[in-house]
Amino acid sequence: AASHDVSIEDLAERIKAGDRSTLARAITLVESKKPEHQAKARALVQHLLPVTGKALRVGITGVPGVGKSTTIDQLGANLSAKGHRIAVLAVDPSSSRSGGSILGDKTRMARLAVDPHAFIRPSPASGTLGGVAAKTRETMLLCEAAGYDVILVETVGVGQSETTVAGMVDFFLVLMLPGAGDELQGIKKGVLEIADLIAVNKADGDNATRARRAASEYRSALNIMAPKSPNWTPPVVLVSGLANIGLDEMWALVETHRLKLGATGEFAERRRAQQVAWMWSMLEERVMQALRADPKVRGRLHDLEGGVRDGAVSASIAVDEIARLFGI
Amino acid sequence: AASHDVSIEDLAERIKAGDRSTLARAITLVESKKPEHQAKARALVQHLLPVTGKALRVGITGVPGVGKSTTIDQLGANLSAKGHRIAVLAVDPSSSRSGGSILGDKTRMARLAVDPHAFIRPSPASGTLGGVAAKTRETMLLCEAAGYDVILVETVGVGQSETTVAGMVDFFLVLMLPGAGDELQGIKKGVLEIADLIAVNKADGDNATRARRAASEYRSALNIMAPKSPNWTPPVVLVSGLANIGLDEMWALVETHRLKLGATGEFAERRRAQQVAWMWSMLEERVMQALRADPKVRGRLHDLEGGVRDGAVSASIAVDEIARLFGI
Repeated sequence: AASHDVSIEDLAERIKAGDRSTLARAITLVESKKPEHQAKARALVQHLLPVTGKALRVGITGVPGVGKSTTIDQLGANLSAKGHRIAVLAVDPSSSRSGGSILGDKTRMARLAVDPHAFIRPSPASGTLGGVAAKTRETMLLCEAAGYDVILVETVGVGQSETTVAGMVDFFLVLMLPGAGDELQGIKKGVLEIADLIAVNKADGDNATRARRAASEYRSALNIMAPKSPNWTPPVVLVSGLANIGLDEMWALVETHRLKLGATGEFAERRRAQQVAWMWSMLEERVMQALRADPKVRGRLHDLEGGVRDGAVSASIAVDEIARLFGI
Repeated sequence: AASHDVSIEDLAERIKAGDRSTLARAITLVESKKPEHQAKARALVQHLLPVTGKALRVGITGVPGVGKSTTIDQLGANLSAKGHRIAVLAVDPSSSRSGGSILGDKTRMARLAVDPHAFIRPSPASGTLGGVAAKTRETMLLCEAAGYDVILVETVGVGQSETTVAGMVDFFLVLMLPGAGDELQGIKKGVLEIADLIAVNKADGDNATRARRAASEYRSALNIMAPKSPNWTPPVVLVSGLANIGLDEMWALVETHRLKLGATGEFAERRRAQQVAWMWSMLEERVMQALRADPKVRGRLHDLEGGVRDGAVSASIAVDEIARLFGI
C-alpha cells in the first residue's frame, strides 16, 4: 500500500473517485519529511489543483473545554444529513500525536468517525506552525479533490495558530464559553479581530442567562472594532453543540457570508490573496531555514544573537555580518 | 558639515556631549541609502551602544484628528518643565516628507519646537515599514546617547505600523476620540491588544460626558481580553491635550508601569526580546530583498506568483522552483 509504488495519475484518479484509503495515503505522502515523498506530493497536489477549491473552508477555534469536538461532531452530522461531505482537519503545532491520536480524534467525534460522508484527519506530527499549516493546506486541497464540500479546520489556538488558520479558510468561527465578567477575561489576543462569527457554546439549561450576557459583551466588544470586511459584520450567536441548538442557524450565517462576499468578488479575491500570502510565507520559512542551516552562518549566529540580546552588538552590525556570511 | 568628513569617535563624542546639530547630522547618516553612509552609521551606533538604553521609550498612536500633536506638545512641555529631555520621533511609512516636513512637524508642536530640552525628528522619507522602523530605532539609540531620557515615538497607524512601534518601545499609548456607539467603531485591528494605556482625548467641555461613556466602553472591551503582561492591566484615562488635563496622571501611570515591570525583570527582558526580534526581522527583510533581486529569481517570480494567485500553480511547486533558482 506504499503510495510511492503508484503513479501520480493513478493516485489522482482514485482520489477523485473518492477512495478514502488512497486519500489517507496521499495525505501521509504530503506529511512525509522524505524529499522523494515531498516531490511526489507536490506533483500530486499540482495535478489535482484544477479540481480543488469547491469546498467551503471553515476554521473553528476555542479554548480547551469549550466543546469544540462535540460541536464539530454535531455540526458535521447535521451537514452530512443534508447531503454534504465533511472533512475535519486539525492544526495543532504543539501536538506530538502519533498513530494513536487518530483513534483519539475519532473517539472524540463519535458520529463523524463512523459516517461514510465524513473524513477526519488529525494534525500532522509536530513541526513548525508554518510546516503544520502547509501540510494542512495541501491536505485540504486533497480533500476537495476527493469531493468533500465542507472542510472544517480545527485549531486549539496555541500561539499564532489561529491567525494561521484564519489565513487558509473562508470563514473563521470562534467558540466561546458562556460566562460574564472575570470569566470572560483571557480571550486570546487577536481572536476577536479575525472572527467572522462568535458562537457562545453550552447555551443550554442553567447556562442560558449567562450565555446571553456573554453574547451581549462580545457584541459590544466587536461593535467598537473595525470589521474585517466591509460586507460582513461578525454576528454573535448562542449555540449548544451538545443539545444541537442553534447549529443550523449558525451554518446558515456561514452560507450567507459566502453569498454576500461572493457577490462582491471579495470571496474569490480573498482566496487568491491567501494563496499568494501562503507562497510567500513558505518561501520565507524555507529561505530562513537555509540561512540558519548555512555552515558559515551557524558558526556565528549564536554569538551574534546573544550579543544583540545583551545589548553588546547592534542589530544592524549583526545583520550585516550574517548577510555577508550567507553570501547575499 | 558633511558627517563623512568627521571620524566616528568625534561624532560620538559630540553626540554624547549633547550637540544637537551633530545629532541631527548623525541621524541623516542613519537615514542615508548610500552604502558608505550606512556602514559609517552602523559603526557609529555600535560605538554608542554602551551609552544607550537609559530613556523611557513610549509609543503614541491615534487616528488623524485625535489630537496627537497637541497632546505630545503639551505632554513634552510638562516633562521638560520637570527636567526631562524629550525626543519626538515619528514612524510613518506612508509619508513622502522631505525637508519641508521638519518645519511641518515643528509647527504642529509649537512648544517643543523652541524648547532647548526637546528634539523633534520627523519620519524618515518613505520606504518599507521595516526600513523606516529600523531607522527610527537607530535614531532612538542616537537620541539616548545624546542624553534624551524620554523618547516619544509617534505613529499614524497605517497598516502594521502600530505593531511595529509597539515592538520598539517600553510602553504603548493609544489616544482615542470621545464618543460612543457608532463613533467608536473603526478602532484599528490589534490596537486594543497592544495598548498599555488608552487615553480618551478631548475630554473637556461639552465632550466630558461622551468621553466618560467612551472610556467605559473601552474598559469593557479591554476587560475581556488577555492582558499583554501578567503585571499590568491597561488603564483607560480621560485627558485633554489642549487643556492640559490628566496628562500628569497619565504620565504617572507610564512610570508606574516601568516600576512594576522593572521589579519583576519583565521590563529588561522585553527589551532584550525586542532587540533579538528586531535583528531577525531586519535579517528577514534583507534576505527576502536579496531573493527578489536575484536575477534568476526575478525572471520567473512574476509568472509563478501569478500562477499561484490564479490557482494554476500550487504554492509548493512555486516555492520549490524559486528556492532552486535562488540556489538554496
